Amino acid sequence: MNYSSKLIEEAVQAFSALPSIGKKTALRLVLHLVKTEPGMTERLGEALLNMRRNIQFCRECHHLSDGPQCQICSDRRRDRSLLCVVEGIRDVMAIEETGQYKGLYHVLGGIISPLEGVGPEALQIDSLLQRVAVGEITEIIMAVSPTIEGETTIFYLSRQLKEYPIRVSTIARGVSFGGELEYADELTLGRSIMARVPYKSEGS
Amino acid sequence: MNYSSKLIEEAVQAFSALPSIGKKTALRLVLHLVKTEPGMTERLGEALLNMRRNIQFCRECHHLSDGPQCQICSDRRRDRSLLCVVEGIRDVMAIEETGQYKGLYHVLGGIISPLEGVGPEALQIDSLLQRVAVGEITEIIMAVSPTIEGETTIFYLSRQLKEYPIRVSTIARGVSFGGELEYADELTLGRSIMARVPYKSEGS
Repeated sequence: MNYSSKLIEEAVQAFSALPSIGKKTALRLVLHLVKTEPGMTERLGEALLNMRRNIQFCRECHHLSDGPQCQICSDRRRDRSLLCVVEGIRDVMAIEETGQYKGLYHVLGGIISPLEGVGPEALQIDSLLQRVAVGEITEIIMAVSPTIEGETTIFYLSRQLKEYPIRVSTIARGVSFGGELEYADELTLGRSIMARVPYKSEGS
Repeated sequence: MNYSSKLIEEAVQAFSALPSIGKKTALRLVLHLVKTEPGMTERLGEALLNMRRNIQFCRECHHLSDGPQCQICSDRRRDRSLLCVVEGIRDVMAIEETGQYKGLYHVLGGIISPLEGVGPEALQIDSLLQRVAVGEITEIIMAVSPTIEGETTIFYLSRQLKEYPIRVSTIARGVSFGGELEYADELTLGRSIMARVPYKSEGS
């Protein structure tokens, strides 16, 4: 497309390099920035540059961090005996959003997937074992996607962790809250019957 | 949402201030930038800041421009006797994209719309009359949307231009090329019959 302006063309090209943003969307966003007050573009440009130049990965859990240690690891109110192992950064955000978990995290940075050539050595497993070796952790919760790769990763990790005096658990799997039973897939429904739990009424 | 990082939070907030970009999409874009090489974020941030700080409006046609005069107005190969009047910047880009038009443009910056409180004084009409008064222009093409507001704008402009020795034309309206006749709206179809043109075979 002919934008009649190098400045516009460069901005459109930089925007459309982002996933799911095509040339037309990019142009719409750029023309929006041209129309609004300059402060909006300044905030966006500065926020992106500042973020990318200063973002780090936490030396403990490998979550995104503004400094060498992330907000979660440096929060003294959190339960340091509980460690939740997740695949990626977005999983930490999703679990934090629930407000239910008060322990620490460990971000593997992926999942064991022989088909995609991802072996254990590509993941943050050594640093997980080092954290466990310190002795403060008593339980590890595997919060990994319930797929074949996830199960493989849990199996591998549980073998590595066998020699340490800790409990290893996985997040509960079953039918979603508010989900219609007839729309649950067979595997989930079948397993949720096999893994049934004793009924406790709210009042008890 | 709790991003556990001020840097991420600010980048997500700046992104989601853009139209049609929600918090989830913004987070996906920011995490994409974190994963890719820093140069990509640098290019995006710098391109946006550079664009917004240096973009101008052409002093002749009011199109976007890298300098006081836009690429189109400063192109000496273009026909300076033809002037195409459009509503906005995107219309210039759309017409340029066709590669069919070699004259100049005039961007009104809107359309007369009494319902939305846009009167002629809000548009670039004085500067249009000044350009016409110079005497180089012999034809003005009204390339405005075929709506009631568009027709009103064309009517108003044609009256203002009456005293000058120029032809005023509008872009042809009718059934789209490649469009199925039965799906054309009644008004378009009716008018395209009334405004029928003599048949010329390709060979003649």
